[in-house]
Amino acid sequence: MLPSRVTIVEVGPRDGLQNEAQPIPTGDKLAFIERLADAGLRFIEATSFVSPKRIPQLADAAEVAAKLPSRAGVTYSALVPNAKGLERAIEAKIPRIAVFTAASETFTQKNIGMSIEQSLDGFREVVAAARARGMTARGYVSTCFVCPYEGEVAPDRVRDVAASLLALGVDEVSLGDTIGAAAPRDVERVIERVAASVPREKIALHFHDTYGTALANVHAGLQLGIGTFDSSAGGLGGCPYAPGASGNLATEDLVYFLDRMGIWCGVDLRQIASASVAIEKVLGRSLPSKQLQRIKSTRA
Amino acid sequence: MLPSRVTIVEVGPRDGLQNEAQPIPTGDKLAFIERLADAGLRFIEATSFVSPKRIPQLADAAEVAAKLPSRAGVTYSALVPNAKGLERAIEAKIPRIAVFTAASETFTQKNIGMSIEQSLDGFREVVAAARARGMTARGYVSTCFVCPYEGEVAPDRVRDVAASLLALGVDEVSLGDTIGAAAPRDVERVIERVAASVPREKIALHFHDTYGTALANVHAGLQLGIGTFDSSAGGLGGCPYAPGASGNLATEDLVYFLDRMGIWCGVDLRQIASASVAIEKVLGRSLPSKQLQRIKSTRA
Repeated sequence: MLPSRVTIVEVGPRDGLQNEAQPIPTGDKLAFIERLADAGLRFIEATSFVSPKRIPQLADAAEVAAKLPSRAGVTYSALVPNAKGLERAIEAKIPRIAVFTAASETFTQKNIGMSIEQSLDGFREVVAAARARGMTARGYVSTCFVCPYEGEVAPDRVRDVAASLLALGVDEVSLGDTIGAAAPRDVERVIERVAASVPREKIALHFHDTYGTALANVHAGLQLGIGTFDSSAGGLGGCPYAPGASGNLATEDLVYFLDRMGIWCGVDLRQIASASVAIEKVLGRSLPSKQLQRIKSTRA
Repeated sequence: MLPSRVTIVEVGPRDGLQNEAQPIPTGDKLAFIERLADAGLRFIEATSFVSPKRIPQLADAAEVAAKLPSRAGVTYSALVPNAKGLERAIEAKIPRIAVFTAASETFTQKNIGMSIEQSLDGFREVVAAARARGMTARGYVSTCFVCPYEGEVAPDRVRDVAASLLALGVDEVSLGDTIGAAAPRDVERVIERVAASVPREKIALHFHDTYGTALANVHAGLQLGIGTFDSSAGGLGGCPYAPGASGNLATEDLVYFLDRMGIWCGVDLRQIASASVAIEKVLGRSLPSKQLQRIKSTRA
């Protein structure tokens, strides 16, 4: 039995736009986020309180956070790398933070310049301080299947990191297939192992469609009782190899798939596509989502 | 339990190249086919004995068939629309033919100008005559899930057409998702119905990756005990909506998926990619396969 309903966590405004070469005007970001909320998305990762020097694309995080459209039932989150980021998140009155580590040492070192253990130590205080103020927290775990530097990642490592994040106070772990290498067998192995320590309802899956396996992996996740999936409107978030190649699973493609599977997600496919079309105009290029391209072609 | 091994039916030289705007030089087609055989593919649909007026891209069918590289264990097939086509196939000594109909009346009418019943009547004599000469036959059924004209297709229709094809002498039916609309639930519904009349080992699945669902559907097919899948090197076979959008599931993407699932298919991913790279040069454009693009990027 597959879940009858699924929660989509929209990561486009943060995970997508932070990877754009050009910073997007703040007003366009806010219009994008508003369209996403109006399309029925209930969890939207809006921005990241990282150093503006490191990621200038999100230097307007405070302004974005301050002007987020108020919508009943919509929870906005922001990535927070450290205590300084949390301070800014608190000022901006963001109700939910996200912290970010990985299951591969080399990736963590190259990505955030510390060991996994150090990253968890840093998050311990951040998450505790956030929760003390009534905020909630999500934890991302990158490279849960294959690491671009180390190759295969042991499911035990994923379980350990996921369990540590839960122990320090996040209410959900998002397990990422950072380079899009996983197939359903990998999803089964990792989920079976992680679920020994983390309740399945606290596990989200974050797939990349780099090699066309994302929806097969979603299917595997559904069969394993996972009910939360991350995606990015239009497939925003990087074209690792070639124009048309994709990174993040596109929200449109995920919504089409769920609709076709008879699984409720509460998100309107055409409205998501409208949000993507508007951001395509700002970016001056087409986004990789296949459903988006279909919907655009039928509108012409 | 998934099957431990899978058969891939390569349809690129026929289904792919027939859709190219420009006819490809015969020598390039033969070199492409030779590379596919050398990569480990055991079933290759090489050409089609259709009217050269209708499909000038395959006007060299007789020459291609006559010069096919002889490889132990490799079976070449050719599409045969009628008695005239069979005559040419016999002359060319092709050991296996394929006939082609659909599960939707409107699609069949628009695609081949007759009713499903008429198409089956026509194939009855063709397949019988082929078998009388020791040839074997495969039957394609298009629009097994959604028809671009009629919408949803009833699984009973697919079962009826598949069973009729089997009754008239084909040893395998290939069920096609012509517009790439299916999701695993559709695959389950159709296979459960068809398998009531057709043994599962005689069912092949032919998916299009138009909306990113092809590998999810392969996964569903594997779970239903299906062990034969069609694909096309590089994803040859039409870009219905946009550059980068794909039609046929790419052989490279299927082989990567099966390798990663631990399922044997006997096909070497990098050698398939070499075949695709060579045909890309002839076509003067990139093919949509994501694995192909990855492999090319790591070679540079």
